[in-house]
Amino acid sequence: MSMISVAEAHEHLSRNIRVLAGSESVGLRKCLGRILAADIISSIDVPPADNSAMDGYALFSEDWKGPDHAIEISQRITAGKPPEPLEKGTAARIFTGAETPAGADIVVMQEKSRTDGQTVWLEAIREPGGNIRPRGQDIEQGATVLKAGHRLRAQDLGLIASLGIASVEVRQRLKVAIVSTGEELVEPGDPLKPGQIYNSNRYLLQALLDAWGFEAVDFGITADNPEIISDVLSEASRKTDAIITTGGVSVGEEDHVKAVVESLGCIDLWKVAIKPGKPFAFGEVLGTPFLGLPGNPVSALVTALIIARPFLFACQGASHYDIVPLRQVALFDKNGSFRQEYLRVRTGADGVEMFEKQSSGVLFSTSWGDSLVVQKPFEDIKKGDTVDVIPYVLFN
Amino acid sequence: MSMISVAEAHEHLSRNIRVLAGSESVGLRKCLGRILAADIISSIDVPPADNSAMDGYALFSEDWKGPDHAIEISQRITAGKPPEPLEKGTAARIFTGAETPAGADIVVMQEKSRTDGQTVWLEAIREPGGNIRPRGQDIEQGATVLKAGHRLRAQDLGLIASLGIASVEVRQRLKVAIVSTGEELVEPGDPLKPGQIYNSNRYLLQALLDAWGFEAVDFGITADNPEIISDVLSEASRKTDAIITTGGVSVGEEDHVKAVVESLGCIDLWKVAIKPGKPFAFGEVLGTPFLGLPGNPVSALVTALIIARPFLFACQGASHYDIVPLRQVALFDKNGSFRQEYLRVRTGADGVEMFEKQSSGVLFSTSWGDSLVVQKPFEDIKKGDTVDVIPYVLFN
Repeated sequence: MSMISVAEAHEHLSRNIRVLAGSESVGLRKCLGRILAADIISSIDVPPADNSAMDGYALFSEDWKGPDHAIEISQRITAGKPPEPLEKGTAARIFTGAETPAGADIVVMQEKSRTDGQTVWLEAIREPGGNIRPRGQDIEQGATVLKAGHRLRAQDLGLIASLGIASVEVRQRLKVAIVSTGEELVEPGDPLKPGQIYNSNRYLLQALLDAWGFEAVDFGITADNPEIISDVLSEASRKTDAIITTGGVSVGEEDHVKAVVESLGCIDLWKVAIKPGKPFAFGEVLGTPFLGLPGNPVSALVTALIIARPFLFACQGASHYDIVPLRQVALFDKNGSFRQEYLRVRTGADGVEMFEKQSSGVLFSTSWGDSLVVQKPFEDIKKGDTVDVIPYVLFN
Repeated sequence: MSMISVAEAHEHLSRNIRVLAGSESVGLRKCLGRILAADIISSIDVPPADNSAMDGYALFSEDWKGPDHAIEISQRITAGKPPEPLEKGTAARIFTGAETPAGADIVVMQEKSRTDGQTVWLEAIREPGGNIRPRGQDIEQGATVLKAGHRLRAQDLGLIASLGIASVEVRQRLKVAIVSTGEELVEPGDPLKPGQIYNSNRYLLQALLDAWGFEAVDFGITADNPEIISDVLSEASRKTDAIITTGGVSVGEEDHVKAVVESLGCIDLWKVAIKPGKPFAFGEVLGTPFLGLPGNPVSALVTALIIARPFLFACQGASHYDIVPLRQVALFDKNGSFRQEYLRVRTGADGVEMFEKQSSGVLFSTSWGDSLVVQKPFEDIKKGDTVDVIPYVLFN
């Protein structure tokens, strides 16, 4: 088991990417965070017709002869009502969003007018086209507005709705099994006996999978027993698209996961040059990808974010999931090591403050802060240096 | 109706903040994104006992006399099993996460050992305390680990689980009514008649409220009729904590929302110096806060993100919801105006690219990009300038 870099770990995993999720048609209301399985192509022009950007008067600009020229109001067009063609020499009273009548080439805002109800006087007019939103300004019929693999945000759902599309073809949520191993683990709410600790990884991973839009399938705490582990992993491989375990993949005599996965498929056990989070296993259980995270919660969190996340998003069918760190000023000194370190920090107006205890045992460090600093191998950080910062929210 | 700045709009709204959401006890599994209603205080030390950070051997450091000194292995301690006190002069075989025995002050990693099963020889040892995670290292009993008002992330749920807490007191989801006004609106899926457009704001706002962890309560499209608007707003005020409308609050003769809200409570109609998004109304309907967004989808999105969002988060009981823009290089020229502009942009390795059409009619501009650039009033942006950028994901 030799040491590999974070980049090498990504490289190994990327060779095993295949889109595992099928597709389904889902109503727009439920599509937030879902991945498009097909391009979105507009079957209409948006807006579907020229319309007014203002409350005012629509006319043919050459019919305006000056501020004292009285113009007859020949129709009244409210939003949602189809207009009549504009009578030559007249103006139409028009409201924001209403379709402009054929023959009009400008809308003059009402603030530039006075009227007695039948007739209007216009102070000044702009160039032809003024205050008119032209048909197809936003989107032309036949245009591809969003591509397969795109992860849908609020504005995308608004955009799709504006095309009249009520449901879209998205990837089914990737089903991801969570298997916690460790005889010392107890579920929150149960009493703690000597030697035991509470299972935090399960909640941490469930929440990450929720945030990523995947479906977390929990298989509870599995005893350190090869037969039980084998049964659980086999069941997980039947019921899910990918399996995550925490704990049980170090070199310890008590770690049976490696042997079991080997018997059901294959496993590579890596020492990744990453801190927190050294041990990481990758393999297959009866054809289902297997990701073995460290049992330590901070290590589990960091390896889930840095190593598991891009792989799972790719298997979900997402086309973009890379994260570009921000650049901010460090307010701390920290010597580097041979591993790539992910320092738990908090950002502020003056720069980035580091949590004092960087031990991987201290999960509180991740709740205290809002970001990770990426410290490359052998890079010493001095106060005042500009460093790579990833706010946790960017991982969502 | 005079023009006010974005800061003045925030100031007006902040005077009306009160926490509207009650609290409820929710199982940890369902707490992602929820707002804590009470501090989280630990009733235990985490870890609850000194434990080993390694697979190796636990001993009293002064018992080691050199690499050739044979030390008897007196017990075997696996994770989850309570240890016996260490017999003087012996070592305990120990595994990662297992409780260290009383009398041991160091764990030597197994890579630095050789053994015949009964006896172990240790190459070298570190300082006392080495490879032992001390009791309470992460959290001491009685410590406040998270404060009321905190919005729960994956790592926070892991942390709370590590304290043995299975459910927490969180704010009930803020119920927010969405009322779409506009005779021209049609729901996606229905055919489009002349003069009509599809209702995109509803989907956009529902998704924003989902992303923020609120409960969106949809009241559909309301006809431009004072009685119907009055009925819908009254019902919304009974069923929800806050009301958002889109459209219907400009000065147009067809906009009845203002008069109706006035009759049911009070309303301020503002021209906010913000682009997109000028008209914004704030008031109360039978005691329920009322936020009137523009009907234009880009304006609705920007005012929802910039003006409505902080107010709603405060009413939800959140203590932190401010957004600090990033600083990035502009790849475009753009003259400022008297309004604060939110430019639709896309970030890349070289800087920030602006979508060509910045008309507020073009919702596609928000889907094309990943961020907004904040352009202050009268600020001209030149290519190469460093500008304030807010990735959309920071609004979540």
